[in-house]
Amino acid sequence: MGKDNLTAVLYKINDLRLEQTDIPEPKDDEVLLEMSCVGICGSDVHYLVNGRIGDFVVNSPMIIGHEAAGIVSKLGKNVKNLKVGDRVAIEPGVPCRVCEFCRSGRYNLCPEVIFCATPPVHGNLRRFYTHAADYCFKLPDHVSLEEGALLEPLSVGVHACQRAGITLGSKVLILGAGPIGLVTLLVAKSLGATKTVITDLVQTRLDVAKDFGADATLLVQRSDDEATLVKKVHDLFGCEPDKTVDASGAESSTRLALLATKSGGVAVLVGMGPPEVKLPLVQALAREIDIRGVFRYVNCYPTALDLVASGKVNVKPLITHNYDIEQTHEAFETAKTGRGGAIKVMIHCKRS
Amino acid sequence: MGKDNLTAVLYKINDLRLEQTDIPEPKDDEVLLEMSCVGICGSDVHYLVNGRIGDFVVNSPMIIGHEAAGIVSKLGKNVKNLKVGDRVAIEPGVPCRVCEFCRSGRYNLCPEVIFCATPPVHGNLRRFYTHAADYCFKLPDHVSLEEGALLEPLSVGVHACQRAGITLGSKVLILGAGPIGLVTLLVAKSLGATKTVITDLVQTRLDVAKDFGADATLLVQRSDDEATLVKKVHDLFGCEPDKTVDASGAESSTRLALLATKSGGVAVLVGMGPPEVKLPLVQALAREIDIRGVFRYVNCYPTALDLVASGKVNVKPLITHNYDIEQTHEAFETAKTGRGGAIKVMIHCKRS
Amino acid sequence: MGKDNLTAVLYKINDLRLEQTDIPEPKDDEVLLEMSCVGICGSDVHYLVNGRIGDFVVNSPMIIGHEAAGIVSKLGKNVKNLKVGDRVAIEPGVPCRVCEFCRSGRYNLCPEVIFCATPPVHGNLRRFYTHAADYCFKLPDHVSLEEGALLEPLSVGVHACQRAGITLGSKVLILGAGPIGLVTLLVAKSLGATKTVITDLVQTRLDVAKDFGADATLLVQRSDDEATLVKKVHDLFGCEPDKTVDASGAESSTRLALLATKSGGVAVLVGMGPPEVKLPLVQALAREIDIRGVFRYVNCYPTALDLVASGKVNVKPLITHNYDIEQTHEAFETAKTGRGGAIKVMIHCKRS
Amino acid sequence: MGKDNLTAVLYKINDLRLEQTDIPEPKDDEVLLEMSCVGICGSDVHYLVNGRIGDFVVNSPMIIGHEAAGIVSKLGKNVKNLKVGDRVAIEPGVPCRVCEFCRSGRYNLCPEVIFCATPPVHGNLRRFYTHAADYCFKLPDHVSLEEGALLEPLSVGVHACQRAGITLGSKVLILGAGPIGLVTLLVAKSLGATKTVITDLVQTRLDVAKDFGADATLLVQRSDDEATLVKKVHDLFGCEPDKTVDASGAESSTRLALLATKSGGVAVLVGMGPPEVKLPLVQALAREIDIRGVFRYVNCYPTALDLVASGKVNVKPLITHNYDIEQTHEAFETAKTGRGGAIKVMIHCKRS
Repeated sequence: MGKDNLTAVLYKINDLRLEQTDIPEPKDDEVLLEMSCVGICGSDVHYLVNGRIGDFVVNSPMIIGHEAAGIVSKLGKNVKNLKVGDRVAIEPGVPCRVCEFCRSGRYNLCPEVIFCATPPVHGNLRRFYTHAADYCFKLPDHVSLEEGALLEPLSVGVHACQRAGITLGSKVLILGAGPIGLVTLLVAKSLGATKTVITDLVQTRLDVAKDFGADATLLVQRSDDEATLVKKVHDLFGCEPDKTVDASGAESSTRLALLATKSGGVAVLVGMGPPEVKLPLVQALAREIDIRGVFRYVNCYPTALDLVASGKVNVKPLITHNYDIEQTHEAFETAKTGRGGAIKVMIHCKRS
Repeated sequence: MGKDNLTAVLYKINDLRLEQTDIPEPKDDEVLLEMSCVGICGSDVHYLVNGRIGDFVVNSPMIIGHEAAGIVSKLGKNVKNLKVGDRVAIEPGVPCRVCEFCRSGRYNLCPEVIFCATPPVHGNLRRFYTHAADYCFKLPDHVSLEEGALLEPLSVGVHACQRAGITLGSKVLILGAGPIGLVTLLVAKSLGATKTVITDLVQTRLDVAKDFGADATLLVQRSDDEATLVKKVHDLFGCEPDKTVDASGAESSTRLALLATKSGGVAVLVGMGPPEVKLPLVQALAREIDIRGVFRYVNCYPTALDLVASGKVNVKPLITHNYDIEQTHEAFETAKTGRGGAIKVMIHCKRS
Repeated sequence: MGKDNLTAVLYKINDLRLEQTDIPEPKDDEVLLEMSCVGICGSDVHYLVNGRIGDFVVNSPMIIGHEAAGIVSKLGKNVKNLKVGDRVAIEPGVPCRVCEFCRSGRYNLCPEVIFCATPPVHGNLRRFYTHAADYCFKLPDHVSLEEGALLEPLSVGVHACQRAGITLGSKVLILGAGPIGLVTLLVAKSLGATKTVITDLVQTRLDVAKDFGADATLLVQRSDDEATLVKKVHDLFGCEPDKTVDASGAESSTRLALLATKSGGVAVLVGMGPPEVKLPLVQALAREIDIRGVFRYVNCYPTALDLVASGKVNVKPLITHNYDIEQTHEAFETAKTGRGGAIKVMIHCKRS
Repeated sequence: MGKDNLTAVLYKINDLRLEQTDIPEPKDDEVLLEMSCVGICGSDVHYLVNGRIGDFVVNSPMIIGHEAAGIVSKLGKNVKNLKVGDRVAIEPGVPCRVCEFCRSGRYNLCPEVIFCATPPVHGNLRRFYTHAADYCFKLPDHVSLEEGALLEPLSVGVHACQRAGITLGSKVLILGAGPIGLVTLLVAKSLGATKTVITDLVQTRLDVAKDFGADATLLVQRSDDEATLVKKVHDLFGCEPDKTVDASGAESSTRLALLATKSGGVAVLVGMGPPEVKLPLVQALAREIDIRGVFRYVNCYPTALDLVASGKVNVKPLITHNYDIEQTHEAFETAKTGRGGAIKVMIHCKRS
């Protein structure tokens, strides 16, 4: 193993540096991973641009990156589920395993979770990284490492669809055609949704969504009247959607989710919007629409991997751009601006 | 049977008249009921004072009243489940039995439901009234007709607690100590809640709640700081409540529900507030608190009757005032002002 | 409308007659249907051969047939959801709409249900037939009447998979590759099952299942040792199936379902076997495998129609044989013997 | 701390010895407990008499006991949730925290669980014992150590009732009035069951059940005809029970559970019976009765403790006999024979 551990460290707003860090030693239950690739998430860009997300603030230098896959290069002494050379997807959050949330199957709510690149925890955009062995998922030979990295956003889609209770015959409205909207679309169709409509402010993103299998798309304009939008949605479905997933987080989207969803349906909000929103709440609650949030994912990596490995979903077209870790700044610029129709920007960590 | 059918008819805002109406003939699947008693609901007062609730407007004279019990005095020709003389509680909404909501067990969402005293449907504050026989529930001998009438608000409490998923060991925060808050409290305890805290702006209502079995109460003041209120709630529980039922509908209560509920918990909103509210939504959704509304009730009358008949809950103390139908105006005045510590005002319909 | 109403009437065991019956007049909420096609179900054959299924006995002549589709030819006076000429699939059971099962969304358990061709209720293998309008489902133009008739077995598959809780990533073992096993397979895949294994005693049926998309098949022999079979199943999956659907009803299949299903999983039994079975119950229950039965279906027709109309499942290959109603005896002979690789035998009712 | 660690070791069938063992040292995440009391479970007696339960065989000497409470006397270095002197109830099974069962909230199915007094794992009927700190539950001052030990069987009742889905208005049939039947009764009532009927072969046990709050009891005789028993059960309820919990495990009880439960209901089997049983399965499954097993409990200790601490259930009357650890043989003799109306026999471990 070399000594090169080039690492992307976020110091503060707009101050992302590539520098060498020590190659860590795996603890008893950990593995050392030679990192293969790391996708850029909207939250990574958010930390770069704003230095914080809600109460999570970058107060000291933090290694960025959490949508990742790598190759096992060394085993902690208790590790039995993996061997050196295994190609793995990395679930970036490792919970405490002890609290009531961990015990009752909702470890994503564990207050002690260690989650990559959520301050002050370091992420994995580097050449070498250690991780809990049981939160590494071995990839079958026919699944690529890039697909492994994409299991992270795909898991968000799996969790969102499960929280929404999407099932056979669901009519699913998806608000926002970015990476999360697209993976939600893929998963919703895998779960038996028989009609999907996706909205966005940008036509080119809707064109991509169409390629990903959306039954219909709706171009929204900021000036659109709310009642008109609701009517357009219902017309496109030929009925009212019983499930809505808001993957944008905009107040206007949240409002649309509440107004357009069918009585007795579910509105799931993945995109995290502003701290305060003005909502027509009674309109939704008097129709017994359930409003549910999504925080990351829980027990979704195995399912996401299954979906990819079985060929039920194809996530590869999400990757529009590839960069080497040395090009990290350029990669973030692409992700930030969305230039060149960027959906998912992938950074490759291996020394070329 | 006499020809006297004194009836309380709401003509328009603040114009409630007592007048004679025809005694109706039961259809094939209906029974004619000699009405015994009708409780006054907040919605009745609302129609009297405002002439409308949301999109439901009193555009033409409407008979008021829907929390009722009576005695079967005549059977439609197909009726088999009841006989003349049976004392029954009346579930006031009769759904279409045909639509997808009716078929899938959520008939409260049936768009064709006929619901007493929701414009333009007439209610049952009169001496004689016809109702679908299968939405009349026969009372055992030891259950009084007044208790029968109270099954209506009790059913709201049952539905609210079921929507909240209250179960063994739940810690339940109830916002508002009016009739709905109190029945929610009774039902929550029946379902195994091991700690209940109830809030209100009025100390005397909290004193009543204490008598109804609340483990702790919290007097809220309009000037209270939000963070302080949350802390007070958590201190009273010694933890965070996993279930919150807002029985008030005030924006401030909805906000408190979202802020005080434990991660992964449920906030149920029974009280229907203003059309638009400003909410710290992301704070709740990022902790995966589910937000659920309550619209009336569905399949709750049998359960509510069971609870009363088995002695598991005692609803009698809810009734603080009794009037004859001839005193309807005075009864509504009491309900409207809450004078004399009014909780539930009951009107008796039989000719004295 | 002509006066010809050729009808298939089962008089007693092995006594099925074609004879004229009166064309019925639709009641207020019914439609008169010109029948298009009726599939033969295993239960139809069972009544023909044994004269009974459990407590349901053919004591007097009964018109046979219940997997059907037709064209609306006359409307009862209250019918609003259909018009003359509409092509419809017929859900064969019409429940009472009044009992607690009907109200709570489980109308398949309604003790007063009127179900086609379950003694003493007549079925619809005839030229003209009346049915409750709201249990007729209008077919889109691109869905054929044959597909409409197949919604009946497909609905059984939908209900079985929903009872099993099949979802994203499920590993599904299906026992029996007859029509019900095959529709279960189709639906399971639509719900996101990522691995399916199907078993049968007959290789040609397994070959068909392979064409329907089974990931693997297992030829079972009556002499097979139980432990060996369990091992073979686990080997084919590369793990243990979390969901098993027994579509055969044989005691040996039920036993295999209990032994092969993963701890915490679900074993659903669709096929109704002998009245008494010997089972290794503790082996399954101590691993918290849930055992669930399936009785027909409930609220599944709209979903089944959606699946076909959206192209998510293709049921057409189920039909291996077609006959005119005049050839009813030959059609039943084919269904009974399974000759010619018969899966689903379809009888066409229109006068040619 | 003294050096006396008197310990009850089961060597083989009917060979239970009291002898000194080493006082263990707590690992980093463990506490050393000075044992206070240990209840005798049916399984303990079973191991003593038969040397095995199913595949679990006493092949080498095993310390017995698992229904226990104690006082923290030493902390492992990582322990933060407890302090020396804390009085705790001991959840006897510690799962691996890593497998999919542990992660998804069903740790009772963890194949790597370490469970007290299930061979080859040692139990805690001794003066000193070490246990994972996070599976020790601190008792409030007003909850006794004996009640703490009783949380173990109470947790079985909690899990059984949760598996059964017992809720407001449930009609619950309980088969068997031993300790598990009694705790199931207590919990069912806490969950809102409005009618409970309990059966047994022994009238004195039914008398106890009556004192524990059963609404009705049924004395069963081995010669009773099945149909008659079903009728008696239905007559006692005045309807059909929607939930049945079999706490006996006898084949006849399992049969009764399947026959007497209402359509669409749930039959839960706690008592583990013979490896093979003959059942009228189709009778139950065609009515969509769900059959569910119970394996120990999961996340039930906090709830059980809440129930006791809040006064909602009173488990103290379960204890009919008390012995010192030196009298262990006599205690087991009492438990085995049930002499003196024994329900729960408690052994006290402290040096007197």
